[in-house]
Amino acid sequence: MRIDIISVMPGLLESPFSHSILKRAQDKGLLEVKVHHLRDYSTYKHGQVDDYQFGGGAGMVMMVEPLVNAIESLQKEVTYDEIIYLTPDGHTLDQKIANNLSLKGNLLMICGHYKGIDERIREQFVTMEISIGDYVLSGGELAAAVLVDAIGRLIPGVLNDETSALFDSFQDNLLAPPVYTRPEEFRGWKVPGVLLSGDHRKIEEWRYEQALKRTKERRPDIL
Amino acid sequence: MRIDIISVMPGLLESPFSHSILKRAQDKGLLEVKVHHLRDYSTYKHGQVDDYQFGGGAGMVMMVEPLVNAIESLQKEVTYDEIIYLTPDGHTLDQKIANNLSLKGNLLMICGHYKGIDERIREQFVTMEISIGDYVLSGGELAAAVLVDAIGRLIPGVLNDETSALFDSFQDNLLAPPVYTRPEEFRGWKVPGVLLSGDHRKIEEWRYEQALKRTKERRPDIL
Repeated sequence: MRIDIISVMPGLLESPFSHSILKRAQDKGLLEVKVHHLRDYSTYKHGQVDDYQFGGGAGMVMMVEPLVNAIESLQKEVTYDEIIYLTPDGHTLDQKIANNLSLKGNLLMICGHYKGIDERIREQFVTMEISIGDYVLSGGELAAAVLVDAIGRLIPGVLNDETSALFDSFQDNLLAPPVYTRPEEFRGWKVPGVLLSGDHRKIEEWRYEQALKRTKERRPDIL
Repeated sequence: MRIDIISVMPGLLESPFSHSILKRAQDKGLLEVKVHHLRDYSTYKHGQVDDYQFGGGAGMVMMVEPLVNAIESLQKEVTYDEIIYLTPDGHTLDQKIANNLSLKGNLLMICGHYKGIDERIREQFVTMEISIGDYVLSGGELAAAVLVDAIGRLIPGVLNDETSALFDSFQDNLLAPPVYTRPEEFRGWKVPGVLLSGDHRKIEEWRYEQALKRTKERRPDIL
């Protein structure tokens, strides 16, 4: 999979893509992530990419032309399955969307900043608008990093143990059960006995019950 | 505000905290973010911080003792308003939670990795569990970065124009209206005339109607 990201703050994305799962996915050749500086596509002086909004009001808006230049220049190299704009008023990201996007070949992500991007880019180019949640961030960069991580770890071969992602929260509409590791006891806080029993049927039953209980208590809406 | 973050991948968080709004907030002395490497608090050989889960199954679990050492060592310096664990089965982050947390003095955030942290840490130390959305990430680091960003930009004095955050999506249970900037026309794609009219009452009416329309179409649930 290839993911291109257009940003006015490419430096912000340096460390997330050079660590952990995303680094491993790239090292294995399963994922290629390229961050492009919007300023490089500006035809205005001093690389201007934003301006005051029409109609007045606080906050800058990212201009049409640099974005058109960036998108069309990348489209000469790559045919995108989706052109995604990260925005708080987009479709709320969930595991199903992440699963679907992990099957695509090429994605382009546009990070907004300041007040957002000129609406005409959304109308003319964007094929999918995604929000990572009901809160506002200072830019789309962290949202893009989150989306790339959520997708990237699902690409077959990226996780060491391919069965691992299948038991995550949300994959079966249940939250994950509690987990414990050594030592069995610490300051009198003990691991539930069943997990030490070696009885795999009982352990699976306990985990299912715990997952169900936790989901009922915390997230009855996803059941 | 001071935010401490405990992580097994502190490098992943380098660039998000050294750019944009979060850098500005720190430069202004309004926010202090410190990332602590969990490995530094391990008493096991080679700085071990995770182990196989009791009961079997794929994925490693972060051990009790290094986390206890890290938390209690930090608590000698700082009294925390909340000890937050970032986890997909936590309370779903929204703008209201971000608003509330932006009023706190000291926060400690624990980033899970692999399969999560030993349940005993959640029972004994964690005061708040937050999920940034219904999807799974490879670790809590990006979730912590998102939470710090969502909170940090709300601290008074961090945004250049303090009125700016008040008009964001979600602050008034409405999505934001479309925004436009120069030029007025590009490839025949025009800015709505009302925004060029100079009639501020009409512009405010139009923006409210657009925000309402967009919210009805996209997110009737938040109205």
